[in-house]
Amino acid sequence: MKGAEALIVDLGERAYPIWIGAGLLGSAGLLERHIEGAEALVVTNEAVAAHYLQPLLKSLPASVRADVITIGDGEALKTLDAVAAIIDKLVAARHSRATTVVALGGGVVGDVAGFAAAIYQRGVRFVQVPTTLLSLVDASVGGKTGVNHPGGKNLIGAFHQPSCVLADVATLDTLPPREFSAGLAEVVKYGVIHDAEFFAWIEANVEALRARDPAALVRAIRRSCEIKAAVVQADEREAGTRMILNFGHTFGHALEALTHYQTLLHGEAVAIGMVMAAHLAANCGRLRADDVERVLTLLRRCGLPVTPPSLESDAIIEAMTMDKKAFGGRIRLVLPSAIGAVFVTTDIPRRAIFETLETFRAQAGGS
Amino acid sequence: MKGAEALIVDLGERAYPIWIGAGLLGSAGLLERHIEGAEALVVTNEAVAAHYLQPLLKSLPASVRADVITIGDGEALKTLDAVAAIIDKLVAARHSRATTVVALGGGVVGDVAGFAAAIYQRGVRFVQVPTTLLSLVDASVGGKTGVNHPGGKNLIGAFHQPSCVLADVATLDTLPPREFSAGLAEVVKYGVIHDAEFFAWIEANVEALRARDPAALVRAIRRSCEIKAAVVQADEREAGTRMILNFGHTFGHALEALTHYQTLLHGEAVAIGMVMAAHLAANCGRLRADDVERVLTLLRRCGLPVTPPSLESDAIIEAMTMDKKAFGGRIRLVLPSAIGAVFVTTDIPRRAIFETLETFRAQAGGS
Repeated sequence: MKGAEALIVDLGERAYPIWIGAGLLGSAGLLERHIEGAEALVVTNEAVAAHYLQPLLKSLPASVRADVITIGDGEALKTLDAVAAIIDKLVAARHSRATTVVALGGGVVGDVAGFAAAIYQRGVRFVQVPTTLLSLVDASVGGKTGVNHPGGKNLIGAFHQPSCVLADVATLDTLPPREFSAGLAEVVKYGVIHDAEFFAWIEANVEALRARDPAALVRAIRRSCEIKAAVVQADEREAGTRMILNFGHTFGHALEALTHYQTLLHGEAVAIGMVMAAHLAANCGRLRADDVERVLTLLRRCGLPVTPPSLESDAIIEAMTMDKKAFGGRIRLVLPSAIGAVFVTTDIPRRAIFETLETFRAQAGGS
Repeated sequence: MKGAEALIVDLGERAYPIWIGAGLLGSAGLLERHIEGAEALVVTNEAVAAHYLQPLLKSLPASVRADVITIGDGEALKTLDAVAAIIDKLVAARHSRATTVVALGGGVVGDVAGFAAAIYQRGVRFVQVPTTLLSLVDASVGGKTGVNHPGGKNLIGAFHQPSCVLADVATLDTLPPREFSAGLAEVVKYGVIHDAEFFAWIEANVEALRARDPAALVRAIRRSCEIKAAVVQADEREAGTRMILNFGHTFGHALEALTHYQTLLHGEAVAIGMVMAAHLAANCGRLRADDVERVLTLLRRCGLPVTPPSLESDAIIEAMTMDKKAFGGRIRLVLPSAIGAVFVTTDIPRRAIFETLETFRAQAGGS
């Protein structure tokens, strides 16, 4: 694949490549090696389709009959109904077990389409073409698919690995700045949880990234995917260490749930959650204050909010208890002990969490 | 587990035991080793619950909080909505990722509950307590879970292995004779596809089986599960040889679909489908006429129908093409070459299938 570097996510018989480059879409036969059957269903949304559907269709093997379904965008539409609509389409167009579901879009499209691929005929082939920075660095690796339930985020889903991911950084040219920044939150996350050097590189290159410099983007995406792949390879089914990827997410999910997925983008909620987690770690004497400041400053420079909307601290704690990673009753948190290192704990007293949240409440509304 | 024999279905890290015996349910602590968390959700239907829910609840570890949900029975209710109802219950009762879904009932309960377990929080523990002969010999092994779509049977689902199966033949005492016979169809199937000796044993013991003699039932169930396990172990994800388990099912599924899952029980449709497949094999010169007769006679002695309801042959062929194992356009069939041996083929001309169906049409309506 010209101009692309492949990163192999090594999951044994489920291993697959992530092709990363600028301007990959639109090359005829690009996906030749990764689609085996005679049919494919492209799942996308209207905004993405306007720019990238035609180039994607050109990338499919000429022998493939491609159907297209457009689904609604936004976390609120990441529902079992959306999955059912995709399955209805697969059945109506008589797609066989040899079909390939191609997700062209951001995280919602990828999660919904991936889950449909996981359960149609007990699992069909799946190709991801992420078009947001968040999905490029998050959904590309891990095999998590699924939808939300009114009672909680991602409560319904399956692990289903793609047969390949096509990461074309040129698709980021049309991404609105707010969504681009939300994606940077996850890039910063990889630095904090695993790689101090990468964190420092982001600090030095944040302007190039925000200017969507292709070389900087390829490097940031590649390193993010490498870190996530290393963690996932060690723990594919999320039994243990994979938990560290949830840094910022226990707080973040609670904020998203309490604002009904309407106010904050996922990456924005994670950014605020990472700042909260860093503060909490510092309050517990586990992180230096200047490391909290570095995290906060970098996220601000990425164009991200670092303080939560106005919410009751009790309500946030209640929502954190509802989070599926905490369902056992205790709140499990991923907290940083330094830039580049985190630990997982269920031992933080609720009082300490409450006090940290109250500090934020005092500043709520700003960013 | 007293009085029970365990058959191990050896799927590596997904290996699990099937406990087979008479009167297992109701022993305190029976499931102690197989439920790990502090919560369980029992999925059952009203008819089964009346007899076996209390004994099952006694079998659960005393430390487990057990919730119960009753779902409707019958293939027509094996829907994504039924799965959503189970998930709503799990969320409402705040079941964690450590929960266990226990299916108490026949194939519908097992398929729906198993699929809910497969997708709740991307997969939770699952225990099967089958209470029909069909589910004892079919659903106990294979890990197939799922629901029907208006466009076809089992089009939505997942592979999800149970952590154990509890096969208590005493639960068959209350099974209506028609359903019992339907289960015998699958027992006969195992003889035809794999084991001539077992087929002869069924011929010699059909009266004992229909009288629900516990020793005969334990032997028939054990051997059926052994044969299915051997096939599944060789091909867990249904890439190849596992297809032979579909003997009688391509015809059978078409008959079920065309009668809207209202007229024939699954086992009855399979019985007719096996007779059709045997006839077709004989018409193609691949099976001796007296073997067709042996299959037909044994199924009749089991109390099963051997001729289809009145349906257009073209409609049956169209429905067979819709079947997910045939979706590629060609009809894939499992045909017997002798008692104890089958082969998989996509080479049978539609004309030959049509002619066999027309022979049956001439006798339609009888049994």
